[in-house]
Amino acid sequence: MTQHSHQTALTQFVDAAGIRFAYRRFGKSGGVPLVFNMHFTGTMDHWDPAVTDGFAKDREVILFDNAGISSSSGEVPISIEEMAADAAALIKALGLTQVDVLGFSLGGLVVQTLAIAESKLVRRVVLVGTGPRSGEGMATLTPEAQEIFGATYEEPDHLWLRVHFSPSERSQAAGREFLKRFRLRREGRNPEVSDKVAPAQLAALAKWGTPRENPYDYLKAITQPTLVVNGGNDVIIYPVNSFILQQNLPKAQLILYPDANHGSLYQYPELFVRHVSLFLDT
Amino acid sequence: MTQHSHQTALTQFVDAAGIRFAYRRFGKSGGVPLVFNMHFTGTMDHWDPAVTDGFAKDREVILFDNAGISSSSGEVPISIEEMAADAAALIKALGLTQVDVLGFSLGGLVVQTLAIAESKLVRRVVLVGTGPRSGEGMATLTPEAQEIFGATYEEPDHLWLRVHFSPSERSQAAGREFLKRFRLRREGRNPEVSDKVAPAQLAALAKWGTPRENPYDYLKAITQPTLVVNGGNDVIIYPVNSFILQQNLPKAQLILYPDANHGSLYQYPELFVRHVSLFLDT
Repeated sequence: MTQHSHQTALTQFVDAAGIRFAYRRFGKSGGVPLVFNMHFTGTMDHWDPAVTDGFAKDREVILFDNAGISSSSGEVPISIEEMAADAAALIKALGLTQVDVLGFSLGGLVVQTLAIAESKLVRRVVLVGTGPRSGEGMATLTPEAQEIFGATYEEPDHLWLRVHFSPSERSQAAGREFLKRFRLRREGRNPEVSDKVAPAQLAALAKWGTPRENPYDYLKAITQPTLVVNGGNDVIIYPVNSFILQQNLPKAQLILYPDANHGSLYQYPELFVRHVSLFLDT
Repeated sequence: MTQHSHQTALTQFVDAAGIRFAYRRFGKSGGVPLVFNMHFTGTMDHWDPAVTDGFAKDREVILFDNAGISSSSGEVPISIEEMAADAAALIKALGLTQVDVLGFSLGGLVVQTLAIAESKLVRRVVLVGTGPRSGEGMATLTPEAQEIFGATYEEPDHLWLRVHFSPSERSQAAGREFLKRFRLRREGRNPEVSDKVAPAQLAALAKWGTPRENPYDYLKAITQPTLVVNGGNDVIIYPVNSFILQQNLPKAQLILYPDANHGSLYQYPELFVRHVSLFLDT
């Protein structure tokens, strides 16, 4: 298996479920790979190299664009269930029989669903900046998210300073470091997503977030050990949703980081990698 | 400094604030010591050697009985503030100018108060199985705690299987291992606390827990980095109180463990020591 890094890993392609999936695979092979599932409107390029390369020292890392995203073909489905089925198809097409999955925000909804549908394929689950079905403030974008995603930015990348980092000086400084890392890969970058992506993902989010009776009962079906992580100041998906996940999942550990917004894993990449590695390895 | 362990450390004495304090001091000296603050009706002997010796490999550990507890003289004060003042007197009497503090349950109330009163003395704060002033279910013992502390047990130690561990088979098995460790020290054990201790501590707890306006505002004064830890199934001090602490403390990280009651640090001693050491050292 390749010993490439986040910067050098080539984008490869595999066909499954009628989709030509773009993916990158790098790090130390031989163990259970960690498959990353991306957030709203993000592509493989939106992961932080400090996180992915941090994990790649000890395990194989797989990044991919789900159906209809950037370098992958097809349309973005308007349900989380279909996104999870597509993710399962990609994992199986790579010949894998057991994986750990990490889902960030929208990707966290996908991996919850995947963990239930594919209980043998998925060994352990990491949920970052995400929430349960019918979670608090999850039927629509939160008011803060509407304002942040609706604003215009001199530098388009500066959107992420407000999505992922808190307003504090310290968090914003961490954000500027993240943006440098995020732009380090220069060759073979992914195209940004098309205009069709956001509406389809929002439709899927709305169905997930809509109020229902006993909304958290489904979490009992996630029998895998689970680690729930968020920033204590997340305004995109409120941190109470991480607490609800921990309280309702059968085997969940929770970690909340201080003075951190939606992108806590990008604010504390080294600590995050150590915490998640401890969880995956013990 | 002594290289003793939890089992072999001698009980020593020092006079301060009119009290003859009993304490034990062991582990690797030269850094910032970690001072342990005990729960309701507990003594130095109630700490888990897997936790204290786990920390002692890398740092100095200080256990003590606060005023009126077991081998220490004096009366148990009926306020958390006085308990914190006594703890500060003990720390200073040992000639220390900077310490990290770990407080478990009642001890967590003491170290919150200590961190505010002695902001230079206290470098970092670890709060385990505890809660804020006017926390949820903290004006009295919770109904579950009343039942557990009110019951009789064939073996008196079995009280702790219900206080510290969840009803699951796995947690109870961890509890039985804890009880073995807890009884390993045979020489120089502490006497159990007198009948005066529980009523005085309950009076202090009642004042702490009583409802008041804007009860969590005081937490803004804890400016030290803080780690909040609990079991996700704590029935003695509900885990929502740990979430409230994280949300209101300026610099707090939160960790909740799965299938764990009040004694999460005794259920997962190795993981707890690694998580806390990461927090103290980075």
